[in-house]
Amino acid sequence: MQHAAPLSKLIDALRALPGVGPKTAQRMAFHLLQGGRGGARTLADALTAGLAAIGRCKRCRMLTDAELCSICSAPARDAALLCVVESPADVVAVEQSAGYRGRYFVLHGHLSPLDGVGPEQIGARELEALLDSGEVREVILATNSTVEGDATAHFLGECVAVRGIRATRIAHGVPMGGELEYVDSGTLARALEGRVSL
Amino acid sequence: MQHAAPLSKLIDALRALPGVGPKTAQRMAFHLLQGGRGGARTLADALTAGLAAIGRCKRCRMLTDAELCSICSAPARDAALLCVVESPADVVAVEQSAGYRGRYFVLHGHLSPLDGVGPEQIGARELEALLDSGEVREVILATNSTVEGDATAHFLGECVAVRGIRATRIAHGVPMGGELEYVDSGTLARALEGRVSL
Repeated sequence: MQHAAPLSKLIDALRALPGVGPKTAQRMAFHLLQGGRGGARTLADALTAGLAAIGRCKRCRMLTDAELCSICSAPARDAALLCVVESPADVVAVEQSAGYRGRYFVLHGHLSPLDGVGPEQIGARELEALLDSGEVREVILATNSTVEGDATAHFLGECVAVRGIRATRIAHGVPMGGELEYVDSGTLARALEGRVSL
Repeated sequence: MQHAAPLSKLIDALRALPGVGPKTAQRMAFHLLQGGRGGARTLADALTAGLAAIGRCKRCRMLTDAELCSICSAPARDAALLCVVESPADVVAVEQSAGYRGRYFVLHGHLSPLDGVGPEQIGARELEALLDSGEVREVILATNSTVEGDATAHFLGECVAVRGIRATRIAHGVPMGGELEYVDSGTLARALEGRVSL
C-alpha cells in the first residue's frame, strides 16, 4: 500500500541508520508516530543538537563537542603511546578493556581504493603531522583484523617506521575462553605463528 | 568512557526506537555523526515533518496526513467489511496479502488492564460509533494470535454481536509451506480443532 508522503519520507530517512532495512524502518516509523511521539520529538532535537555541537577532536579525530576530546585533554594520559583505530566505537571498546592509558588516533574508515578512500580520507596527513611533533614513541596499530584493516595497518606502519618510531600491531590469536575445537582455522594459524615463550 | 553531553543525549534518544539497545544506539549515533551527516539532517527533518503532518484517520485510526486515510477515502473499498487490527503495520501486512477489499479499524494496541489499556485506549467507543452508523455488515477480528490479542478479539466480538452484526476471527492453523513435524503443538491443536470439510 502507498503510505502518506511524510510517512514514506520518514521511513526512507530511517533506512540511513546502520543495519536498518525497509521492514525495520517501517516498524520504527510507526512506533515513533504512534505511542512514542515524545521520543520522536526528543530524537529530532538530539539529532539537530548533535549535528551542531559534535565535531572531531583536533588532535585525534575522535567525536567530541570541544576542540580536544576528553582523552586528549586528560593530563594523566601518556602522550608517548598512540593507538590507531578505525572508528570511534573502537575507542570505546579499547577504553572498556581498561588496560590502556595512552592516546588514540581515529581513522574513520580504512584504506579502500575502489571506494575512493585513500590516505587523505583516513587522515594519514594529520597522523604524520602528529608523529612529527615528536611526542609519540610507539604507535599501536589496532585496526580491524580484516583484509582492509591489515592493509591499512601495513601502510601506516611504514609511515611510522620511516620516522624511527616503534610501530606495533595488536596480537591476534585464540579469544579468551575460546576452545580450539571451535576456533576457525585462520585464527588458529595466526595463534600458532604468534606463539610466545612462557 | 564518558561521551560528550550532546552525544550521550543522541544515544539515549536513539534507544527510543524499537529493538535498539545501548550498543546499537551508540553504533547508530557514531554512524550518523561520522560519514552520514546528510542522513542525520534528513532524519531530523523527516521526524519534525512527520510529527507535524501525520495523525490518525478520523474513521479507522490508521496513520495518515489527511482527514481520511487513502483506504477509507477509496470509493472501490467495500464499506460493509471491517477488518480490526492491532497496529498500522498489520494494515500493511493484510494489504500485501492482496485478498482483502474492505476497510480497517486500527486499535493501536490490545486490552491490557495491568498496563492501564482498557476499551477507551484501543478506541472501542469509536469502533462502536462506526458500527452504529449502519454501513458495516461483518467485522473481521484480525488481532494477533496471542493471549492479549485473543482476549481483545473476544471482547470486541461481543460489542459487535450485540448490534446484530456478524463477527468473525481470522483462521488459525498450520502456515502455508509448514511441515507438521516442525509446527508447535498449540498451532497443531488449533489446526485440528478448526478442520474444514473438503
